Amino acid sequence: MLFFTQCFGAVLDLIHLRFQHYKAKRVFSAAGQLVCVVNPTHSLKYAPTRCAAAQTSAEQGILSPCHHHEAVHDPQLVPCTCPLFSCPWEGHLEVVVSHLRQTHRINILQGAEIVFLATDMHLPAPTDWIIMHSCLGHQFLLVLRKQEKYEGHPQFFATMMLIGTPTQADNFTYRLELNRNQRRLKWEATPRSVLECVDSVISDGDCLVLNTSLAQLFSDNGSLAIGIAITTSKVHNAEAEI
Amino acid sequence: MLFFTQCFGAVLDLIHLRFQHYKAKRVFSAAGQLVCVVNPTHSLKYAPTRCAAAQTSAEQGILSPCHHHEAVHDPQLVPCTCPLFSCPWEGHLEVVVSHLRQTHRINILQGAEIVFLATDMHLPAPTDWIIMHSCLGHQFLLVLRKQEKYEGHPQFFATMMLIGTPTQADNFTYRLELNRNQRRLKWEATPRSVLECVDSVISDGDCLVLNTSLAQLFSDNGSLAIGIAITTSKVHNAEAEI
Repeated sequence: MLFFTQCFGAVLDLIHLRFQHYKAKRVFSAAGQLVCVVNPTHSLKYAPTRCAAAQTSAEQGILSPCHHHEAVHDPQLVPCTCPLFSCPWEGHLEVVVSHLRQTHRINILQGAEIVFLATDMHLPAPTDWIIMHSCLGHQFLLVLRKQEKYEGHPQFFATMMLIGTPTQADNFTYRLELNRNQRRLKWEATPRSVLECVDSVISDGDCLVLNTSLAQLFSDNGSLAIGIAITTSKVHNAEAEI
Repeated sequence: MLFFTQCFGAVLDLIHLRFQHYKAKRVFSAAGQLVCVVNPTHSLKYAPTRCAAAQTSAEQGILSPCHHHEAVHDPQLVPCTCPLFSCPWEGHLEVVVSHLRQTHRINILQGAEIVFLATDMHLPAPTDWIIMHSCLGHQFLLVLRKQEKYEGHPQFFATMMLIGTPTQADNFTYRLELNRNQRRLKWEATPRSVLECVDSVISDGDCLVLNTSLAQLFSDNGSLAIGIAITTSKVHNAEAEI
């Protein structure tokens, strides 16, 4: 009996996933775009993450592994870049992706253009939606965060970070696009490196920022579809010159 | 002597204007785009404007001339749509433009694509930057407002309104574009009619919203260049289908 109940649950989940996939396809009608349904994770905002600890050390005049990874004993080791959890892991930049997949169960998607479908946008802040995106021979971390910068007024912040060095990040441009209800919002920028803290990118507001009413206008039944594209910076510069 | 001083002042102003024009041209390098330098006006936010008065009446159950212009004694008369000042004027929709030009000294610009260069972005809220834009046989009102929705945290809100009816407004799409420091932000939407209050569009947040840090990233020496383009909605829909 338990077996049948579980099977039925799995089938229902599949139907739900298929329905959400269809909705996102309808929004981004370009054929061949990969749609990824991303479920929220309650953000452990107040937990002392490595990043926060590193920032505190930096304020106290101690070099932080987050902003100054040269200060780590082995200069080739970087701390865990997962924005969700406090994690004592550190390792080489090349193995950050497998650590994020295996330990933090962050999905990875292939493709130049994908659609990130964040579900349950109504959940209270702090909440994060995270995936990795593999493209142009590199891996990127996409973070959508619901956060209350001003008490009682949650906002959504979306940014893309390269799992690589700041110098490597300078070679790319990422684009986030929202398109619904006869409104379109596009944000294009150079990704930051995961060696910089995602928290500081968001607190600086140097990312796509949405207030709740705009997020609702762009959402469909509580889900927000974000079209993502990554190009090399040369293409971006050529466009700017046209 | 006074004559020479004034002449010298005028020449300095011209050089300053030319310099700002050059800066905006450098940002939006497309040839032939008209650049309009727009100076700020301190917004009389707390004055009982017709709009605010109309909204109070609406709350009290009285039909408001702002949201329900059918309720004006002569249904063809509309109140002054200037978002800056309380003004007792009312007239036909066709003469709103000449009223705004003559009484409120709001500049009007011709051209499908123009660059709106808002100066002195550092001025405290509430401040407005306003021009009219004549394009595709219609006139539009562009409003950039600096306002503190959350005390101590000023934000910038930009929207475009058709000086016409809501039905006419549905035929157009406007685009606002910021482009600087390897970042690009584009907002596309259907303009609202000036018969709706600009104040409610901004309080709903259904417009381009910039926090102070993003506004600084897009500004050049205290001036913010916004590229503006208006198209008919058919073009917009065709683009969305591609």
